[in-house]
Amino acid sequence: MANSKYEYVRHFETQDRCLPNCWIVVRLDGKNFHKFSDSHEFSKPNDEAALNLMNCCAVYVMNEFQDITVAYGESDEYSFVFRKGTTQFSRRASKLMTNVVSLFAASYVFNWSKFFPNKQLMYPPAFDCRVVVYPSDENLRDYLSWRQADCHINNLYNTCFWKLVLQGGYSTKEAEQKLKGTYSSDKNELLFSQFDINYNELPQLFRKGTVLFWQKVEEKLMKHFKSKDSERLETKEVTRVRNVVVTQHIDIIGDEFWKLHPEILGKAKS
Amino acid sequence: MANSKYEYVRHFETQDRCLPNCWIVVRLDGKNFHKFSDSHEFSKPNDEAALNLMNCCAVYVMNEFQDITVAYGESDEYSFVFRKGTTQFSRRASKLMTNVVSLFAASYVFNWSKFFPNKQLMYPPAFDCRVVVYPSDENLRDYLSWRQADCHINNLYNTCFWKLVLQGGYSTKEAEQKLKGTYSSDKNELLFSQFDINYNELPQLFRKGTVLFWQKVEEKLMKHFKSKDSERLETKEVTRVRNVVVTQHIDIIGDEFWKLHPEILGKAKS
Amino acid sequence: MANSKYEYVRHFETQDRCLPNCWIVVRLDGKNFHKFSDSHEFSKPNDEAALNLMNCCAVYVMNEFQDITVAYGESDEYSFVFRKGTTQFSRRASKLMTNVVSLFAASYVFNWSKFFPNKQLMYPPAFDCRVVVYPSDENLRDYLSWRQADCHINNLYNTCFWKLVLQGGYSTKEAEQKLKGTYSSDKNELLFSQFDINYNELPQLFRKGTVLFWQKVEEKLMKHFKSKDSERLETKEVTRVRNVVVTQHIDIIGDEFWKLHPEILGKAKS
Amino acid sequence: MANSKYEYVRHFETQDRCLPNCWIVVRLDGKNFHKFSDSHEFSKPNDEAALNLMNCCAVYVMNEFQDITVAYGESDEYSFVFRKGTTQFSRRASKLMTNVVSLFAASYVFNWSKFFPNKQLMYPPAFDCRVVVYPSDENLRDYLSWRQADCHINNLYNTCFWKLVLQGGYSTKEAEQKLKGTYSSDKNELLFSQFDINYNELPQLFRKGTVLFWQKVEEKLMKHFKSKDSERLETKEVTRVRNVVVTQHIDIIGDEFWKLHPEILGKAKS
Repeated sequence: MANSKYEYVRHFETQDRCLPNCWIVVRLDGKNFHKFSDSHEFSKPNDEAALNLMNCCAVYVMNEFQDITVAYGESDEYSFVFRKGTTQFSRRASKLMTNVVSLFAASYVFNWSKFFPNKQLMYPPAFDCRVVVYPSDENLRDYLSWRQADCHINNLYNTCFWKLVLQGGYSTKEAEQKLKGTYSSDKNELLFSQFDINYNELPQLFRKGTVLFWQKVEEKLMKHFKSKDSERLETKEVTRVRNVVVTQHIDIIGDEFWKLHPEILGKAKS
Repeated sequence: MANSKYEYVRHFETQDRCLPNCWIVVRLDGKNFHKFSDSHEFSKPNDEAALNLMNCCAVYVMNEFQDITVAYGESDEYSFVFRKGTTQFSRRASKLMTNVVSLFAASYVFNWSKFFPNKQLMYPPAFDCRVVVYPSDENLRDYLSWRQADCHINNLYNTCFWKLVLQGGYSTKEAEQKLKGTYSSDKNELLFSQFDINYNELPQLFRKGTVLFWQKVEEKLMKHFKSKDSERLETKEVTRVRNVVVTQHIDIIGDEFWKLHPEILGKAKS
Repeated sequence: MANSKYEYVRHFETQDRCLPNCWIVVRLDGKNFHKFSDSHEFSKPNDEAALNLMNCCAVYVMNEFQDITVAYGESDEYSFVFRKGTTQFSRRASKLMTNVVSLFAASYVFNWSKFFPNKQLMYPPAFDCRVVVYPSDENLRDYLSWRQADCHINNLYNTCFWKLVLQGGYSTKEAEQKLKGTYSSDKNELLFSQFDINYNELPQLFRKGTVLFWQKVEEKLMKHFKSKDSERLETKEVTRVRNVVVTQHIDIIGDEFWKLHPEILGKAKS
Repeated sequence: MANSKYEYVRHFETQDRCLPNCWIVVRLDGKNFHKFSDSHEFSKPNDEAALNLMNCCAVYVMNEFQDITVAYGESDEYSFVFRKGTTQFSRRASKLMTNVVSLFAASYVFNWSKFFPNKQLMYPPAFDCRVVVYPSDENLRDYLSWRQADCHINNLYNTCFWKLVLQGGYSTKEAEQKLKGTYSSDKNELLFSQFDINYNELPQLFRKGTVLFWQKVEEKLMKHFKSKDSERLETKEVTRVRNVVVTQHIDIIGDEFWKLHPEILGKAKS
């Protein structure tokens, strides 16, 4: 059963290397998460445990692929940004997206019970994923701004929608109708006047989504060793610098975040 | 926070539609499964429970994507073949591979405890995945033959290797050395003369891998209904035809399998 | 001036190999040939010399790339079909299309004066070109049928249009209006009743376009040689088989052409 | 002869848009120009007329595609750089390369007799062409430096080689042997000591190749008009600014050229 006569089939494979010297964004989305969140009775408009589970999976992914310089998540989607110069998987798009998405999906099931100790996972979820490549820092920041603006727009809408439905006595159709064509200011006003809610005081997790990045932290460790001139075991405090993933729910559209963390875009700290 | 000024970033996405009228193969492989199988103390050379868990995940994938006409698995890899004319995800390669691989990975964790009731899953596994496109039936059959021949070659080698190590008292280096340059016939002979094993009598699951395909089955159901002219509830046996996934461990290199199941390649039963 | 530090830029090049075991179609079109044909006062609706110049260029291309099994031309476009198994330029799409299109364009200028002895070429023309890949023989035949049906539809329309304008006294706008929404049968009728033209008797070059393919021809040559036993120069007739490009203006939509020339699709003559 | 049932074949075409916000380089090379230059008895190591014909064709291309911001040519190759933001042909790689290469090839034949008034063009040449995309200005400059360094290295070698062969009495094999493993300094020395040639005094056209770019020029025109208050035709000098292609044979590896012409890379003049 020689394999050689079949091996020609390998030549049908194609190369899909990402253009060098570009940011590589890997974005995943839950498949049919509307149905998934209904099946698992997620709170509306935001389920804090579900969001934190997403964030936990993202940390797993970042720890596995340390060339991810920043990640941003909202709702059932997550974007991972590999640094411009990464050679992970020789920059092959297929390998990047499938490794990320499969680890994320496996982590989702693996960690479910930590976030939903009293809820059974009904069935394994799927995610779809794509790779997009950005040549300039400006393009990348605009990409991340696009996602965070999307988070804001959807969350403001959903907050109004579910308030109308859950407390206002509207049917889902009536709520949709009510919100059609309204501006942000209208929605803010509606929340305030009708439901006594100041939108800007809602949790940042809901309004801003989640940004993950690396930070060097100093750890103090007690190290035990034998001193040269005696048999005694001595103890000394040593400092170790470690790279850890930091989770924040803050604005990444303005310049402030990027000035504070220039190393994310590969720039020196001023 | 208008989103419109950032939306231009969508134009950096690329299309990756598979050529029409071609078989689409989605193949996934466990990432670092050498380490994973060590961590979980899988039996050598084959762990039956681990293989059955793989097969179980493949059934999840086929039930979700019914345009998969046949799947073949061995060791820590699985190939799924979408039929030539599928329009699933508009034939976009990214969507096909990431949906398949993430559902497979999530199913792996989800079903772990059924196959390893006494073993804790230590960490979530990742899989990488690719799409390959084949224009002709012959190319597709050669692809599947390539994978099944690979299964055979690896299994024969691994069976010898682990016999030498686990029972023969060889170190792994010595076993490697012993097998270097040997032919199939040498390995068969070694197993027989030294370990009293007839290779061809080992389980087909190990030697042939696993092939999954659809089969129509007739189900007899009891249906209850009210008869027109009375108030009584009557019961009638009805026959329903259902498509179910069949699991076999048989040869798919020769013609026999394909003659028995011409519908897999979209041909009429003769 | 060492070159090594710049050579990294080569890694930005991408591979664009065509899928193996597929027909490769290279189709070129004149760029702005509306303006080009006006500048050179081509006859309307068809300029026979211009069409023959196109055909001449196509012969140059076929003689250079003998893996082209068939070519089809109409108006200012030409399609060249490389056989399924070609390894020309390692099947790289860029190389295939640019070599074909540049040779075609250079041949166009090179041969202009043979077809237009009394007309100056005003400026060099450009052509654009693309590669399309077809997995099955049926797909390929449908592609060629698509182009020949296109030839027919355009030619019928243009014949009517220019008759109306050049002989019927219509303005171009009026002619357009007159033909709007008409069927083939209407156009045939219009030509017959108003201009006494039986469309089916117009030259096949205009109605069917041009198909090029290879044919083996026997050539009888006189060969001179010295006989062994004498000093005299003797002459003998020898037969040589040569592959030459044949030009025909016939139907390639129906089966007849393909039954007559099965070798074009790589099949044995029955 | 309805076309609709064949039109499905259009869906086999693929998109090949270049990544936005990147420099697009279109590079062409003469096909078999070794043979072509022999057939046409080009002077060795450089044929000035042949180089000027190449440059002439490049000017045709730039005048047709004004989004080409800079072009660089040496030997039988030419690189055209489309500006980062170009939307020419919707950035489709196939269209960009085939239009450029076919116009170049047609121009080559069209202008041949101007540069070789006493030499017949024996056959039409072909060129192959590719598209490469560069994300940053630095990458682009490195690309152009790579080509100009290549020009220098080849020209120094060829100058030595042909001096040895044409004047030194070496066979081509002996010349090859003589030059094997030599450094630039050795070759400079060889030219000076053996042939009394100071390499740096050879024409820049040979040593530096040719760079083309746009420059605004003021043209003074005499404009005739009727004055308001009289019937007399008056004449006035007016100044018009026009964009013209400039041809230079200078260093583009160092910073000087780019400081002088920042607008090539889309930067403001300081």
